[in-house]
Amino acid sequence: MDGTAMAEIPGAVAAQRRMAEDLFDALRRDGLDEPGVTRDPYGPGEQRAHVTVRRAAEALGLLIGRDAAANLYMTWPGADRAAPSVVIGSHLDSVPHGGNFDGAAGVVAGLVAIAALQRLGVRPACDVAVMGIRAEESVWFQVSYIGSRGALGTLPDGALSVRRIDTARTLAEHMRDCGGDPDALAKGARHFDPKRLRAYLELHIEQAPSLVEAGIPVGICTGIPGNFRHPCVTIEGETAHVGLPRRFRHDAAMAGADFAMAMDRLWEAHEARGVPMCFTIGRFHTDPAQHGLTIVPGTFQFSLDVRAYDPAVLAALEREVDAIVAAVQQRRGVRFDRGDKPGAAVGRVDPAIAAALTAQAASMGIATMPLGSPASHDAAAFAACGVPMGMIFVRNENGSHNPHEAMTTDDFLAGTAVMAGWLAEAVG
Amino acid sequence: MDGTAMAEIPGAVAAQRRMAEDLFDALRRDGLDEPGVTRDPYGPGEQRAHVTVRRAAEALGLLIGRDAAANLYMTWPGADRAAPSVVIGSHLDSVPHGGNFDGAAGVVAGLVAIAALQRLGVRPACDVAVMGIRAEESVWFQVSYIGSRGALGTLPDGALSVRRIDTARTLAEHMRDCGGDPDALAKGARHFDPKRLRAYLELHIEQAPSLVEAGIPVGICTGIPGNFRHPCVTIEGETAHVGLPRRFRHDAAMAGADFAMAMDRLWEAHEARGVPMCFTIGRFHTDPAQHGLTIVPGTFQFSLDVRAYDPAVLAALEREVDAIVAAVQQRRGVRFDRGDKPGAAVGRVDPAIAAALTAQAASMGIATMPLGSPASHDAAAFAACGVPMGMIFVRNENGSHNPHEAMTTDDFLAGTAVMAGWLAEAVG
Repeated sequence: MDGTAMAEIPGAVAAQRRMAEDLFDALRRDGLDEPGVTRDPYGPGEQRAHVTVRRAAEALGLLIGRDAAANLYMTWPGADRAAPSVVIGSHLDSVPHGGNFDGAAGVVAGLVAIAALQRLGVRPACDVAVMGIRAEESVWFQVSYIGSRGALGTLPDGALSVRRIDTARTLAEHMRDCGGDPDALAKGARHFDPKRLRAYLELHIEQAPSLVEAGIPVGICTGIPGNFRHPCVTIEGETAHVGLPRRFRHDAAMAGADFAMAMDRLWEAHEARGVPMCFTIGRFHTDPAQHGLTIVPGTFQFSLDVRAYDPAVLAALEREVDAIVAAVQQRRGVRFDRGDKPGAAVGRVDPAIAAALTAQAASMGIATMPLGSPASHDAAAFAACGVPMGMIFVRNENGSHNPHEAMTTDDFLAGTAVMAGWLAEAVG
Repeated sequence: MDGTAMAEIPGAVAAQRRMAEDLFDALRRDGLDEPGVTRDPYGPGEQRAHVTVRRAAEALGLLIGRDAAANLYMTWPGADRAAPSVVIGSHLDSVPHGGNFDGAAGVVAGLVAIAALQRLGVRPACDVAVMGIRAEESVWFQVSYIGSRGALGTLPDGALSVRRIDTARTLAEHMRDCGGDPDALAKGARHFDPKRLRAYLELHIEQAPSLVEAGIPVGICTGIPGNFRHPCVTIEGETAHVGLPRRFRHDAAMAGADFAMAMDRLWEAHEARGVPMCFTIGRFHTDPAQHGLTIVPGTFQFSLDVRAYDPAVLAALEREVDAIVAAVQQRRGVRFDRGDKPGAAVGRVDPAIAAALTAQAASMGIATMPLGSPASHDAAAFAACGVPMGMIFVRNENGSHNPHEAMTTDDFLAGTAVMAGWLAEAVG
């Protein structure tokens, strides 16, 4: 069968709309924390969302499971339960006072897509698991992809003992509260054998208004950026009197400005060549204990996050940053101490999945465009383990991580239809 | 007589050296606050320095006086005590943990010069007052030129009720502690009628190593810069997710960097044309309550201090800043709120005094060079009232406002000889 069948069933779209709207309403009530919603990971906010989607899954007759990281699996059993399975995942936590759709929309989409296929009488060949993933938002524990990497057995060393910034309690403690088994994780337990996964699919609202700008409801992900980060760079110059002439200065703040603008020119040049990248200097500051109107700053601090979709581009950017630092050090007589450099690998999208999603959308008359994910997603954790991965983005007006996300139900249903069509073709 | 006479008196230079070194030693002991010295204005540190220089002045038979602002006058009475007088001034306060020479050297120079002239049997035609000025360092009360403007009756409104940053007590209270009469100042009392002043002379260590660089012991001041300041500029952009593409960003920190680098290019261009100016961004920072590794900064703050020696250049720089702000606002879709803009007029050096100082030095075989003051000085407060003003800079290795000032006694005596020579010619 192909996806167009669905639109031909009388009442199908109306039923999906009702299910989606009811679920989003319930999730919003569960997470309400004006302004916006707060679904704190491994805490009451996320927990209520798990209860809500689990009830919806039970109503569809899906099988309910948990793993040691307390992720939720809602499985539509396949004809061959031993065959490699499909996972449709997304996270159920949010940033503090975030929007209702970031994360949760991907779980709702999985359930709505299965409901639609059930209505069409589809019987999947293999298991299709909708996964409610824990703790994706790194703002809480300062560790990314906790739930998905917990399921894949790739949680970084020490992650279980990091503390949530608001409660100061460890990830292990929070996990235990929610029925997880951190001791098992610590011993290497994993829920998935990546080789036994046929595909991982995730639907997410877009996080920059690219689809809005283009007037297109659905984006087909071309990749999730890898990154390297310097969470804390320090520039050491020389504190001096406000009257010091330019040639004598070793102004650490001007060195910071010089670095930032050189990075900006680099980005501009990449844009001009059509090579996607991104850099962000989130912290950028003189020392509040020392700075003043009439003092040439002797020290300066900043953070740096650099992203790209191609490992070769990312590696070249690391070399460019080295060169810019060397030039600014030379030009301004200052010294950069770049500190740690954590990084994340590029999340490669499976070309066959991207092509199939695009073709499905075209067959349904849904306009799509290829779109690099600006942000990180659990999908990257699956791709890093070699699981064929694809993502669907849905048009969204006001960015994410804020209460003003604006996704229409029409656009959500369009993205969900693409997912359902792909599922029908892949496992139907 | 001319200044060369001094060097011809056997033992004269040795006596001056001993007097200078003894006075500097005493002042260092009085102010010791490792590292460096602290002579807190209208407080015990400054007070001890006043006692020390007063004793030295009494040993020279000078007349001791005070004004309502508790400035110290050590007067060498002239033949015609009603004639317009000469003031040799400098401040006796310091920054916290500052050097021993910044300020005090100018007072010591006045006393040593008078001692040298007395030894030569000079009898001045008019009064020559060495003035120990209060509270020049604006770091304490955040008001500049307190002592000199108190003496001139030009203290700004509200100055008496500002609080010292460390004690939180008002300037009026501190002044009263030191024998001053803030109530009289509040009623408009002034010590000087500027029309009755023939000249104001100040010797100061150089505050940037220009003389060190040139290998010249003495600089003849060409002017004290005027300035305009924006103590607190705020840039409003839009806080956003780290993954937001460049074209959607309104990054307030990048707007700050863009502004700073545009100012830097402006300074570079002025330097290339040989037009002296200076700008300093002392505070330059994202909001510590909001900034983070994965957040595009929505707000940014900085301070701006712009200096020049020519009122026309300063006015042109104000227009340039307007143009840069407009361009950055346009380019980055942000808004600058520049807040207050206090300023200070250019302190014009009297060309006849500068020429006479230069000629005196040449006649003594002391190498000099013209030098714009990088910093502000009480001399500017006198110039602002129309008093003919001149300044002598002495070579100093490590800048000022720090414990590492390094002026040699030889260089100090060279600067003092220029001052004494000028005095001998002007009033001898």
